[in-house]
Amino acid sequence: MVRVFAPASVGNVGPGFDVLGMAITGPGDTVEAEWTDTPGVRIVQITGDDGALPLDANKNTAGIAAREMLKVCGATKGVALRIHKGVPGTGLGSSAASAVAGAFAVNALLDQPLPKEAVLPACIEGERFVSGGVFLDNLAAALYGGVVTCHTGMRTAWRVGTIPGLQVVVVTPAARVLTRESRGALAERIPMHGFVHNMAAACAMVAAVARKDAITFGRAIDDQVVEPQRARLIKGFERVKAAAIGAGALGCSISGAGASVFAVCERPGQAERVGVAMATAFANADMGCTVTLAEMDGEGARVL
Amino acid sequence: MVRVFAPASVGNVGPGFDVLGMAITGPGDTVEAEWTDTPGVRIVQITGDDGALPLDANKNTAGIAAREMLKVCGATKGVALRIHKGVPGTGLGSSAASAVAGAFAVNALLDQPLPKEAVLPACIEGERFVSGGVFLDNLAAALYGGVVTCHTGMRTAWRVGTIPGLQVVVVTPAARVLTRESRGALAERIPMHGFVHNMAAACAMVAAVARKDAITFGRAIDDQVVEPQRARLIKGFERVKAAAIGAGALGCSISGAGASVFAVCERPGQAERVGVAMATAFANADMGCTVTLAEMDGEGARVL
Repeated sequence: MVRVFAPASVGNVGPGFDVLGMAITGPGDTVEAEWTDTPGVRIVQITGDDGALPLDANKNTAGIAAREMLKVCGATKGVALRIHKGVPGTGLGSSAASAVAGAFAVNALLDQPLPKEAVLPACIEGERFVSGGVFLDNLAAALYGGVVTCHTGMRTAWRVGTIPGLQVVVVTPAARVLTRESRGALAERIPMHGFVHNMAAACAMVAAVARKDAITFGRAIDDQVVEPQRARLIKGFERVKAAAIGAGALGCSISGAGASVFAVCERPGQAERVGVAMATAFANADMGCTVTLAEMDGEGARVL
Repeated sequence: MVRVFAPASVGNVGPGFDVLGMAITGPGDTVEAEWTDTPGVRIVQITGDDGALPLDANKNTAGIAAREMLKVCGATKGVALRIHKGVPGTGLGSSAASAVAGAFAVNALLDQPLPKEAVLPACIEGERFVSGGVFLDNLAAALYGGVVTCHTGMRTAWRVGTIPGLQVVVVTPAARVLTRESRGALAERIPMHGFVHNMAAACAMVAAVARKDAITFGRAIDDQVVEPQRARLIKGFERVKAAAIGAGALGCSISGAGASVFAVCERPGQAERVGVAMATAFANADMGCTVTLAEMDGEGARVL
């Protein structure tokens, strides 16, 4: 029997729509797996989901990813999974954490586990079931840890690194935003200047992670393409963002497709103040929320 | 008296329109400078330009950059410049090399030269005179060396690093493309999928430089936004690109606004074959050209 963990993550990380991802410490999904003589995947138990997720392995993100991983390694046996959901709300890569934990658990059962790169394709299949497409940012973050940069056309993602000590504040409102709906809100054409701005910001963030430069990383979090189109889907977003910046955050944007909002700060004390300011702003918009104070998770999927 | 050199460079580097720049070994501009008692900038001589550039320092890129640098350091004396142009054709950051060499020469005359970051604003003013805007990619490459990533809004650029041994083939056709004209050819709105593709590719390239991964860097050179709009301005471009890839180049695109075309390869022997194939393709389109075999220039502007 193995027990593995895959962390929650921030998709897009501001300007890097469908390109950048960042794993965070704290919340995540845990999957226990053991070999069974019956081929295929059986989900024995799911906890932490309030009964929302299907036990049918062919309709469950973790189950599908586990099934694909069994194919990848040519297993003749089957697996039994126990899933504990630990990613709150929407916008923190909940389905990605499940897919990664499911595939990684099967990999961890092997006598000679494959490298993480060989696990990614199975994770993609699991995520595709819920999101309807190939979106690598949360998957690669949950699998590799740290900040990742993804290239859908190449079906590849690269771990760039981490910025130790960087504070990540995540505020998750009670309201849900569905990824499909949030993607449907996007225009098919965007202004040229927005393209150049976001690409410059995303590249600056990648270079900043390589240099471990927290200030540049945070200040470059400025999305002029997608955030303006999605902000209206999150009640109170503009006030929450203003509150974060006003309380000293380096940058603030929507986490993934929302509804979670994230901000980054240099110091822990500052992060606490930013979290309070953001929660207060959501409360002023009659929106309850939970606050998570985190750092970058540098490890990604691991055996517990 | 000081003598300084600023290298030629590839702007955009494929997908990274107005964001990525790469300095190359070989061609570049040389500027000799000495203090004069008369304030201001006097251009004594320009060679290598076939008489095309103005000796009036207020109408010359290097002269304007030198003048701005005199302001930055609060000089009461003036400078006399001798400029040798060594960047062939268009698309290799010729004006950027001049601006950087002009400003850097003044800086090098100081008893305590300023760091390169403090020289960038003067370079921007010199480049602005010819291009009409703030374009950092060639400037920062010529100043810092290696691969740079630029953020116009932040007025900042960062040196990411170099990939030692990476081969850069540059083919410069006799035809000229003016940057203003080439920018005028661009649409104001672009497809969302092109934005995501190019941003993913540019971020992958930044991450690849940080890891010194030549193969990913080269394969990510794939511009789906700007190149398709500009290709028609360079006679024979599609055939030249196909020839480069066919001869083993990892990637190929327009250098800056053109008319130069660049390709990258892993090994020197391969670069020679790619250069021949590209030149042959230009010749088949009745276009004469010069071929430059280079590597990344890791140093940027320097005192000779």
